[in-house]
Amino acid sequence: MIPPIVSSVSQTREQLDRVRRDGKRIGLVPTMGALHAGHASLIRRARQECDFVVVSIFVNPLQFGPSEDYQRYPRPLEKDAAICAENGVDLIFAPETTDMYASPQMTFVEATHITDHLCGAFRPGHFRGVATVVLKLFNIVQPDFAYFGEKDYQQLCLIRRMVEDFNLRLTIVPVPTYREPDGLAMSSRNVYLSPAERAAAPALYRALTLARERIAGGETNAATIKATAMNVLTAEPLIRIQYLEIVDPSDVQPVAAVTGPVRIAAAIFIGKTRLIDNVSAG
Amino acid sequence: MIPPIVSSVSQTREQLDRVRRDGKRIGLVPTMGALHAGHASLIRRARQECDFVVVSIFVNPLQFGPSEDYQRYPRPLEKDAAICAENGVDLIFAPETTDMYASPQMTFVEATHITDHLCGAFRPGHFRGVATVVLKLFNIVQPDFAYFGEKDYQQLCLIRRMVEDFNLRLTIVPVPTYREPDGLAMSSRNVYLSPAERAAAPALYRALTLARERIAGGETNAATIKATAMNVLTAEPLIRIQYLEIVDPSDVQPVAAVTGPVRIAAAIFIGKTRLIDNVSAG
Repeated sequence: MIPPIVSSVSQTREQLDRVRRDGKRIGLVPTMGALHAGHASLIRRARQECDFVVVSIFVNPLQFGPSEDYQRYPRPLEKDAAICAENGVDLIFAPETTDMYASPQMTFVEATHITDHLCGAFRPGHFRGVATVVLKLFNIVQPDFAYFGEKDYQQLCLIRRMVEDFNLRLTIVPVPTYREPDGLAMSSRNVYLSPAERAAAPALYRALTLARERIAGGETNAATIKATAMNVLTAEPLIRIQYLEIVDPSDVQPVAAVTGPVRIAAAIFIGKTRLIDNVSAG
Repeated sequence: MIPPIVSSVSQTREQLDRVRRDGKRIGLVPTMGALHAGHASLIRRARQECDFVVVSIFVNPLQFGPSEDYQRYPRPLEKDAAICAENGVDLIFAPETTDMYASPQMTFVEATHITDHLCGAFRPGHFRGVATVVLKLFNIVQPDFAYFGEKDYQQLCLIRRMVEDFNLRLTIVPVPTYREPDGLAMSSRNVYLSPAERAAAPALYRALTLARERIAGGETNAATIKATAMNVLTAEPLIRIQYLEIVDPSDVQPVAAVTGPVRIAAAIFIGKTRLIDNVSAG
């Protein structure tokens, strides 16, 4: 059964207040829609741990740069509702932009350190937009648990940090990246890829896993490990590398030597499509 | 009776969770301590409107500039507790800095527009520190109402805006500035003034009220009105003007002509002591 789709902030609150009064644990899966099997795995995890599962669907203009794909970002609401229904979602919160940003936003969440590298370095304002809208969603839904995919690793670190820094009362649950059989991480942006681009895309995960294997094999020099992975990517003529970095998982700062747990993260362009992925190692 | 003074974040939450479960309305008066009659008027207002009144006392290092008075800011906790007791406070939340900033803060509340002028222009990072700690306090105490003095007018506007922008579920209650009989606004920093400086200080309010009278008399040219007020201040040799501005009360932007309600705000130095004040007009 298709769950109710509520666009009004105040109606969403009213309904969730009743749920809370019944003593139910609320789980939130924040999304921009265009749901795929990765989102479904977040929803199923929420379904296991919570009594009432909310999926928010909001393509947040604040987190897109002027040259990015805000306009063409897919918005298949009917298909999204069906995926929510299949996975037992109780409520879809799908606000209008005019409701989320009722008056011109003048206060924002800004991060330091944690957003200095990786995507943060290449998408100015992106994480400000992400953190700000996620804080708004948290305050509207007031969930006990919120679910974030590890695929957006820097985002996950930022949100976790925000929760701690601002003394928010909820638990962030990281969910492993869901992949196609050939290793390509599920992403709403995969639909942009032509057949030839789609065929080239799994090189991203191959490069990251090769780096992980080098670390498992005892290599500690980050430059050496990165060079190995970059070679996999440069071998694919359709791929342009934006970054490939090995970072400390706690503060997302690049490391020169692998002396403990790290995250290997990369962003590439295939044609006009930007893809990111990451794996843990060390 | 002196109310309980709790420094632990988790203990404060536990106690307030019980209060909330009893269906009581919680009021928060955020302060940096050094309480005076102005704070007492905030507390009494909270006492009238709420079932349970929390005063937070925390000298927030994040909102002081490197050359400002963080170290010498007065911290008379016993006297503060007595003032809280006299005014019926139920709980004093007085956290340690190490508890409020348990790990290095990496996410902050940043404002645009509303903090561009007045104090915001002269105290870089100040309002970032204010908004960030107030958001933390809101999330720890989770009050239904929070009380802010109009004396810190730009701060009041910022906090109000933050509540709206971040969809926080509480009501901000502005409380009129409490003044000495000669018009000087109550401030914890008034204790810094020597007798001669104290004698000069009421010129600040006199200047602002003169500007208000010019507006009431029909003057609309902001430059003319400001010049009138500045003359009052420059007549006092102990006073150095930092700013005197007429702003739109909604977005704290300077106006060239007074065509509706405005706020007249000024900051001065008397010796090493910085004082601010403001009045409404128009």
